[in-house]
Amino acid sequence: MKDRPVILITNDDSINAPGIRALVEAVRELGQVVVVAPDSPQSGMGHAITIGDPLRLDKVDVFDGIDSWQCSGTPADCVKLARDKVLHRKPDICLSGINHGANHSINVIYSGTMSAAMEAAIEGIPSIGISLLDFKFEADFEVSANVAYELTKRMLAGPMPDHMLLNVNVPIVRPADFKGMKICRQAYAKWAEEFDHRVDPRGKDYYWMTGKFMNMDKNPGSDVEALKAGYASIVPITIDFTNMRMKEWMEKEWKDFV
Amino acid sequence: MKDRPVILITNDDSINAPGIRALVEAVRELGQVVVVAPDSPQSGMGHAITIGDPLRLDKVDVFDGIDSWQCSGTPADCVKLARDKVLHRKPDICLSGINHGANHSINVIYSGTMSAAMEAAIEGIPSIGISLLDFKFEADFEVSANVAYELTKRMLAGPMPDHMLLNVNVPIVRPADFKGMKICRQAYAKWAEEFDHRVDPRGKDYYWMTGKFMNMDKNPGSDVEALKAGYASIVPITIDFTNMRMKEWMEKEWKDFV
Repeated sequence: MKDRPVILITNDDSINAPGIRALVEAVRELGQVVVVAPDSPQSGMGHAITIGDPLRLDKVDVFDGIDSWQCSGTPADCVKLARDKVLHRKPDICLSGINHGANHSINVIYSGTMSAAMEAAIEGIPSIGISLLDFKFEADFEVSANVAYELTKRMLAGPMPDHMLLNVNVPIVRPADFKGMKICRQAYAKWAEEFDHRVDPRGKDYYWMTGKFMNMDKNPGSDVEALKAGYASIVPITIDFTNMRMKEWMEKEWKDFV
Repeated sequence: MKDRPVILITNDDSINAPGIRALVEAVRELGQVVVVAPDSPQSGMGHAITIGDPLRLDKVDVFDGIDSWQCSGTPADCVKLARDKVLHRKPDICLSGINHGANHSINVIYSGTMSAAMEAAIEGIPSIGISLLDFKFEADFEVSANVAYELTKRMLAGPMPDHMLLNVNVPIVRPADFKGMKICRQAYAKWAEEFDHRVDPRGKDYYWMTGKFMNMDKNPGSDVEALKAGYASIVPITIDFTNMRMKEWMEKEWKDFV
């Protein structure tokens, strides 16, 4: 049993979501799995961390034979607490998901699933965020669980560059129709928000956020394109947000200014 | 008065923070300023958006002669609502800040200030997030207000590449000691978290997140280096998070796999 890699698993749909259970079952044979996940859904939390409130961390018995903890904080909090208070070391890999719903293209910045994976990558822990395009509770995780298994096995076999961080999305397909995995770049897309304006019983306005996803990316090689064609998309994500092209432009065009 | 540029101002410390007031006063002569900002502090919210709760948006009278609205949501929500329900158009520029506290290096991903600016940039609105390294309520915003004024004026004068998004940090210096602005890259740094473990009156464990900032970046040209030398750092930020170098590595090394 010794020298088995430590696999930290978290998510943003909460420890009780079917997606995290599918992930635990998919990879448990690859190492020593430890789960530290939110005690309630955290979707749309972006890379939030909890600094003004105390955090709770409680041992729970959710997965048969797997050390599991639920946390009152965000997905990023879970990774931080797991390292410091549960594992007392870096895990060999961190997996976040399987998310009920897409996190391709620009959604990486709104995604709690990806924020956990990114937090791990900043720490130097190789990391995968994995999402299924089906947001339903009773979604079929068979294909996405296989993808998670294959990728985790490959990454653990090494070698890997530093700060390896993958954003993986899996289309809604039957296993027989699945085309395989594809390495992609992030599509340029955005949400065209619309707000549903309502009036409460006391006569005060309020708004529900709705929105339509718009893929503005017509060039080949994007994650949205791969998903449409029936592939799982794999986008390596950076933790250096410097826009180098913009920097070069500014160094030239703003020379008189800075 | 016509053809004056529309300047949307928001922040994450709330509409009542001295930092946003300093920003409004600094740039109000450059255009038509409209403020849509959170009604309560949102620090550490990352790029959170509010999808499961209704949002409130109320007109308030906080700044003399400036159209102002407070919103129950996150900084990213404020930008979305401002565009759709207040301005009914894109502003010419979006300014977020002046934040009470640093948002250099890796902090861009935890920062509510930067999430508002990033949300605007995704929409195609030129945008600046501006932060002062002093987190105190009574911080002196003189130098940072000047920086905000100069940068806003320069950006409005154009031309600009698409999706221009700047992360600006200003050191704690007296005006006489200020060295000027410097175009930088994001430093490689992280937070070494420590959790302060306590036991509540009912005997249950809880944790406060604390942490020590660690700059691991010894190479020249980073924002942390510029700030230490007394400059304001300007880092252009990307909205494409694809790690292109990692993508090339994977395309070569994982050829047998995907």
